Amino acid sequence: MVNKKAYLLGSKRSSIRELFEYGRRRAAEVGKDKICDFSLGNPSVPAPEELKEAYKRLLELPPLEVHGYTSAVGCDELREALARNISETFGFSAKARDFYVTCGAAAALTSVLGALTVDCNTEFIALAPFFPEYRCFAETSGAKLKVVEADEKDFQIDFEKLSKLINNNTQGVIVNSPNNPSGVVYTESTIKRLASLLTERSAEYGKPIYIISDEPYRELVYGGVTVPFIPKYYSNTVICYSYSKKLSVPGERIGYVFVPQNAENADELFNAVAGTARAYGYVCAPSLIQRVIAACVDIKPDLTVYEKNRDILYEGLTKMGYFCARPDGAFYLFVRTPENDGNSFSERAKRKDLLVVPGAGFGCPGFIRISYCVDTDVCLRSLPIFKELIEEYCR
Amino acid sequence: MVNKKAYLLGSKRSSIRELFEYGRRRAAEVGKDKICDFSLGNPSVPAPEELKEAYKRLLELPPLEVHGYTSAVGCDELREALARNISETFGFSAKARDFYVTCGAAAALTSVLGALTVDCNTEFIALAPFFPEYRCFAETSGAKLKVVEADEKDFQIDFEKLSKLINNNTQGVIVNSPNNPSGVVYTESTIKRLASLLTERSAEYGKPIYIISDEPYRELVYGGVTVPFIPKYYSNTVICYSYSKKLSVPGERIGYVFVPQNAENADELFNAVAGTARAYGYVCAPSLIQRVIAACVDIKPDLTVYEKNRDILYEGLTKMGYFCARPDGAFYLFVRTPENDGNSFSERAKRKDLLVVPGAGFGCPGFIRISYCVDTDVCLRSLPIFKELIEEYCR
Repeated sequence: MVNKKAYLLGSKRSSIRELFEYGRRRAAEVGKDKICDFSLGNPSVPAPEELKEAYKRLLELPPLEVHGYTSAVGCDELREALARNISETFGFSAKARDFYVTCGAAAALTSVLGALTVDCNTEFIALAPFFPEYRCFAETSGAKLKVVEADEKDFQIDFEKLSKLINNNTQGVIVNSPNNPSGVVYTESTIKRLASLLTERSAEYGKPIYIISDEPYRELVYGGVTVPFIPKYYSNTVICYSYSKKLSVPGERIGYVFVPQNAENADELFNAVAGTARAYGYVCAPSLIQRVIAACVDIKPDLTVYEKNRDILYEGLTKMGYFCARPDGAFYLFVRTPENDGNSFSERAKRKDLLVVPGAGFGCPGFIRISYCVDTDVCLRSLPIFKELIEEYCR
Repeated sequence: MVNKKAYLLGSKRSSIRELFEYGRRRAAEVGKDKICDFSLGNPSVPAPEELKEAYKRLLELPPLEVHGYTSAVGCDELREALARNISETFGFSAKARDFYVTCGAAAALTSVLGALTVDCNTEFIALAPFFPEYRCFAETSGAKLKVVEADEKDFQIDFEKLSKLINNNTQGVIVNSPNNPSGVVYTESTIKRLASLLTERSAEYGKPIYIISDEPYRELVYGGVTVPFIPKYYSNTVICYSYSKKLSVPGERIGYVFVPQNAENADELFNAVAGTARAYGYVCAPSLIQRVIAACVDIKPDLTVYEKNRDILYEGLTKMGYFCARPDGAFYLFVRTPENDGNSFSERAKRKDLLVVPGAGFGCPGFIRISYCVDTDVCLRSLPIFKELIEEYCR
């Protein structure tokens, strides 16, 4: 009577959302200070004060102006601010017309994947570990998602495996750096090698293979690490961005698709992104937050607490004997579990009110993800529990 | 290289959006007061003051609370307010868990159509005149949209034609009353007859045929007319609602799906709605506006200017010799054009800076739609132009 796949997606939820909902219920039962909830990538640094000021200023304008429909592509003010911001930050030429404003990165991704799906043979490639929703997004557009197994030593790209998965049906490779869930930033050398491989294979098949760069964590990097701006290395790059993490507004659903003019078929691709968004019912991105972001694109919030949390957990856990690649960005640690079984570890941890997401959904069943966008206190409180857990395994 | 259908949808835009964008450009050229733009259903009554107050009050709360992810289904506060509002307003039992909060009515519709599409034979039925995006929404979910021709004398339902289109693959009939574009409200007798027909045919096929009630204009009715609340007449009704029109916040994208508990397969359907929304990339509806709406569900804004505009245009145009069914709701007039050719009329009008949407997209090629959610002054200024036009045709 109803669509089975949709029913499953709706009734099972993602394992992340599942844990998050559990965490909320559990916190209501035992008190928030009794659980260590590392389930969701919900920023813990409050949105900057300037954001609130922008809201208040805009609310004094005529309501029809701020709450009315914007163009489907987004309001001029925001698109111009985005173009200026990208040009100034990365020294990369961007025009307002290259930006399609979206309800966050998820909407940006579904729109780009839909736009690039030409028939039922279309394939996209994700690089494990990867955000599990990629699969559902790709399949919804009618394409297949192929997954390159993780290089578990440093979570850069296993190029041999990637190369084998590319074929004439490959329309895009989804890149997510800083990475969710590993926190790893792809080095410049990784990006150069990826660009060179894709240039070669695009030429072989006589058609562009795009990099779909999902980069909501672009600004969340620590210790002076630089995130290479991929369009500078590979022109057939499409960026999916969100302000959720940088400005701590994940609930507001605001982001964009950036299709650089020098990408092949840029205009066709841009229009197909717009068409997919329209078909999914995205009339326009929420209007007031569009204007708020336009006023806030240049803000650099203080995200040092994430670095502090990373240090506490990374040092604490590795000292106990856990293995994880050192994360330079995002707010995730991806930790190998003692028995190489993330599901079982996550279940055991849950019984101690420590919520960590099993790695299977990300393509690495032996791992668990820790979202350390929490109060530092939660990190500190969690250490003895992690210790208990590893000791149980060693017993 | 890109999805053709998406490209067409994105490059052509809807005729409404096309005219709207043209109107913006044209207004910038010649001045806003030189054009009469009746293209878009963008409310002209400012959002109520209480909305602004709610925003300001909520902005004083901790930012993480107001800008963080909500549950995918929506925040508790809003869902409880919705349940209470529906129960009190219509004397119809509703629970918080029956509401799935969405990014407006378009997202509600795509989610419901996706949920009810079981295979490529699935069919939905729209009743002309109908909102043109229904076709694209239904086809995106993989279903077919069949259209019942309009009963052009009063724009109620032609039941003989509807009955012929229903078959074993029919999963739902989309009802939109008050109607966009005709402004007509289905009478209680129409709804009763529809309920009886669908009950009979559901029994015949041994499966429910749902009414999908798209009702963003529910509160926009004039002269004491009552809009029948369809779940009271037919239990297999799913409501798609939006606050865009009632509270004049179309840009904010906030609405809901209401699946009454006594609908058949209510839980399965609800979950499939959630699953479709997830697959399309709707992580949650924008968070701050969810809370704002929770505080404003009971507000009854003063929308009398729409009634005034309706009267001016309806009386003015019918006196000139135009025909249109008297609209009791929404903010649209659907007018038969002198040569029975809405495209040509719209083009002629455009040359006089009068923007009206051709009826073909709504399933009635001989008509044009006037969105009278404009300053009354625009209605008054438009009358001589409408007169000129009808006189040109009569010459």
